[in-house]
Amino acid sequence: MRIVDIIRKKRDGEKLGKKEIEFFIEGILNGEILDYQASALLMAIYYRGMDSMETAYLTEAMMKSGEVLDWKFLKKPTVDKHSTGGVGDKVSIALAPLVASTNLVAVPMISGRALGHTGGTLDKLESIKGYRTDLSIKEFKTIVEKVGCSIIGQTENLVPADKKLYAIRDTSATIESIPLIASSIMSKKLAEGVDAIVLDVKTGSGAFMQRYRDAKELAMLLVEIGRKMNKRVIALITNMDEPLGKAIGNAIEVKEAIEVLKGSGPPDVTELTLKLGAYMLYIVDVVKSVDEGYKKLKENLYNREGLRRLRSMIELHGGDWNYVNSEEFTRTKYRYYIRAHTSGYISQFDTYAIGLAAQILGAGRSKMDDVIDHKAGIILHKKVGDRIEENDVIFEVMASDEKNMNHAIEILETSYKTVKRRIQPQPLIYEVIE
Amino acid sequence: MRIVDIIRKKRDGEKLGKKEIEFFIEGILNGEILDYQASALLMAIYYRGMDSMETAYLTEAMMKSGEVLDWKFLKKPTVDKHSTGGVGDKVSIALAPLVASTNLVAVPMISGRALGHTGGTLDKLESIKGYRTDLSIKEFKTIVEKVGCSIIGQTENLVPADKKLYAIRDTSATIESIPLIASSIMSKKLAEGVDAIVLDVKTGSGAFMQRYRDAKELAMLLVEIGRKMNKRVIALITNMDEPLGKAIGNAIEVKEAIEVLKGSGPPDVTELTLKLGAYMLYIVDVVKSVDEGYKKLKENLYNREGLRRLRSMIELHGGDWNYVNSEEFTRTKYRYYIRAHTSGYISQFDTYAIGLAAQILGAGRSKMDDVIDHKAGIILHKKVGDRIEENDVIFEVMASDEKNMNHAIEILETSYKTVKRRIQPQPLIYEVIE
Repeated sequence: MRIVDIIRKKRDGEKLGKKEIEFFIEGILNGEILDYQASALLMAIYYRGMDSMETAYLTEAMMKSGEVLDWKFLKKPTVDKHSTGGVGDKVSIALAPLVASTNLVAVPMISGRALGHTGGTLDKLESIKGYRTDLSIKEFKTIVEKVGCSIIGQTENLVPADKKLYAIRDTSATIESIPLIASSIMSKKLAEGVDAIVLDVKTGSGAFMQRYRDAKELAMLLVEIGRKMNKRVIALITNMDEPLGKAIGNAIEVKEAIEVLKGSGPPDVTELTLKLGAYMLYIVDVVKSVDEGYKKLKENLYNREGLRRLRSMIELHGGDWNYVNSEEFTRTKYRYYIRAHTSGYISQFDTYAIGLAAQILGAGRSKMDDVIDHKAGIILHKKVGDRIEENDVIFEVMASDEKNMNHAIEILETSYKTVKRRIQPQPLIYEVIE
Repeated sequence: MRIVDIIRKKRDGEKLGKKEIEFFIEGILNGEILDYQASALLMAIYYRGMDSMETAYLTEAMMKSGEVLDWKFLKKPTVDKHSTGGVGDKVSIALAPLVASTNLVAVPMISGRALGHTGGTLDKLESIKGYRTDLSIKEFKTIVEKVGCSIIGQTENLVPADKKLYAIRDTSATIESIPLIASSIMSKKLAEGVDAIVLDVKTGSGAFMQRYRDAKELAMLLVEIGRKMNKRVIALITNMDEPLGKAIGNAIEVKEAIEVLKGSGPPDVTELTLKLGAYMLYIVDVVKSVDEGYKKLKENLYNREGLRRLRSMIELHGGDWNYVNSEEFTRTKYRYYIRAHTSGYISQFDTYAIGLAAQILGAGRSKMDDVIDHKAGIILHKKVGDRIEENDVIFEVMASDEKNMNHAIEILETSYKTVKRRIQPQPLIYEVIE
């Protein structure tokens, strides 16, 4: 088998077989296939695509390129949630402890970092003084066993093929390929060894899949890969046409996640957390219906079970709970209020631009080695459909650097639209694919 | 400027500008652009193509990546011929000295090696004991000044960008792109610094461009690049549906080239040599018409001026002229005759298969570091349209290794077709593009 023949085959639009895909993944890891051969094949896949069978083969080969975790010792179902990324998406921080607080399932979550206009759960958690995301698998297992959940970062041993391929794709314009995105997501989630996965596939101006049809194609492919690999997978297609909740940043998003667990979070984040959690319970059969799961989780908001579980998890990770609850946690040098120039209703946000403004403030990264400013961020005072009067605050900008702040303000000033008449906001969840 | 944006631009079907193409070529040479980014862009070019302007920019940037020769000191026009490669194509060996023997122009020729099913002029010349193809540019210039022609190999300093890109393309399935082929050919020829170029674009079963429309597209693009770069370029689209002449190998092809210069070569090689030579004289205005050039060259066959010039060139390169004329020059251990099983007319050769058989005998290479057996080869005793009787010799196989010989025989046995009724062979030259 020669890689040049495999590249030519895909280049000419043929399907690749299991053995060819395995040969490719093994080859890039043992160095027999060179990076430039990998990128040529990735570009050919960009143009020619892969069907669900090829994508499942790729997912499996990538998953098997490293360690695959095993949770049998827990003697309860394990389930995880993955989001394709958005602006203000702090769901995981509330969701993992809330679902774990039912004691029916465990949630071992391996999460990612901010990149581009989107935030990353790991960076948000690292705004908590002492919180370690780089635990060993052994420590990870211990925490999951103790409190039912843990959120850590990728380890070296998990899916090394994805790390390698992602680094190539990122700098060779081959990111935007649905089968490559799907296999990257699924290989990482499957290497976690969980029994089931609930996917939050976002669409809209703040999502990677801005177009609905792309999000749907990805969601269907993800569910199909799950089916082919005998994993229970459900995908929710959700609204990312406006930021989720009100906070966009790191510390301020942790704070908002805590609000959710207190039952006083913004309605959209709270609702999405409950719905995703309900599907997580339902998919592993520990509740009879999504509704039953939803009610159980809502109870655990009001009785603070979820919140207690978050605190336990943070403390086991070395995080300082008092710090999280102090004024200092979210205090920044500069604070600026962007106000409405006119009255009416908010009709639209350019959520991509808002995410970019947060990144410029220091809440995100344009390159993998950029340093995060954990306190910087944006607070939305209005959401789509809200009534505004002239001079009402739309955005609150929190910054430690004046120049970046001014740049972000400039972007934010034109990042929303208003209309005169009341409008109906889009639904939060568009569709469930199972 | 970032290479990832340039890749994305081409990926999405946009045209690249001069600066972007220069940035790419400079970057791959100074290491700022990585090989895997280059191959991703090459694959995007494979799918999206490049127009003649982009191809001219690429050609120019590649040409300027190294030294560009200057022949002003000769005080006469310089002209070269390039062939896209075929089976039995020994034209250059007779053509360069024949054209030079008119004393009207000089022919500084930088040639290539055998690869795949095609032969290479350098390997053929190296079958002559002592002939050096790795001359310095200074030695090259001295010989051209003395005898009007010289044939050498690529030097390190000429078009380093092409060497780099070709190595990537060869192993990443991005060879078969007409703009990439065109820029590779033209950058090398233009770096020779000649005033004009005559191109022999081959089409048919033994050519790289098997389909006529591809050959024509390439020919038109090559001529167009010349126009955009203010170089006189003419392309002849010629027949490679059967091997050129009778000899396919190295020493035996040198011998056939000598036959051509004696006026006793096979009609097709002789005719093509004269026609290409006539265009070489015509394109730099040293003759008034192609016909006038043709007559001049034909004269120099019969008066042996061309042959004398070949001998001078070979001797200045260190080659042993007596060896070339000895029995030993083409003597092989094994010789096998493949005979007709039936009578009729030869209607078709699978010229690709014949080239492959020659390669297997040792006359060519499957990898760049394969060692050539200079004496091995095939002699065609019949050409398309020839009458054959049962038991007539079709191929004479010359080999030094019995196993390879048997493998080649097996291929050759099925490499021709016969018909009962006389047929009209295809023309030698299909079209002239200028």
